[in-house]
Amino acid sequence: MRADRSRYIRSLGEAIRRSRLRRQLSQEGLAERCDLHRTYVGGVERGERNVTVATLLRIAHGLGTSPACLLQDAESLLRQREGE
Amino acid sequence: MRADRSRYIRSLGEAIRRSRLRRQLSQEGLAERCDLHRTYVGGVERGERNVTVATLLRIAHGLGTSPACLLQDAESLLRQREGE
Repeated sequence: MRADRSRYIRSLGEAIRRSRLRRQLSQEGLAERCDLHRTYVGGVERGERNVTVATLLRIAHGLGTSPACLLQDAESLLRQREGE
Repeated sequence: MRADRSRYIRSLGEAIRRSRLRRQLSQEGLAERCDLHRTYVGGVERGERNVTVATLLRIAHGLGTSPACLLQDAESLLRQREGE
């Protein structure tokens, strides 16, 4: 379960990073848009932060998407990796 | 933004409650399946708790669904309410 949790959080970080890069935003640019610190955003993208739903909502707004879309992307990445 | 956040968290709580009732689980039954306290689950369903992604994963597993599905349901409820 602990491993599940880490994998899930890492996949979410990766989904956020991909979404940010698609929008050609830097970590700093995204951090400004969500009023978070750049190092915090970096930690989220590396899967080191277990964000709350409220923070996920801020990040999703900053990316012009929704929390559900980010989690869908995260779960797709997770399935791809499990299939490898 | 603060109002957005509260509405979002309340909709998520409602989505969790509906999913639990569809599975004919009590709050206590769900709490046992996710190894959380019943009063905590109650607080989540009432939108009083800003859960983390890891906790959402535990709740989703307890409900036999995924975090992305719960957030999709929450966002559908939110859209329905905004349309009212």
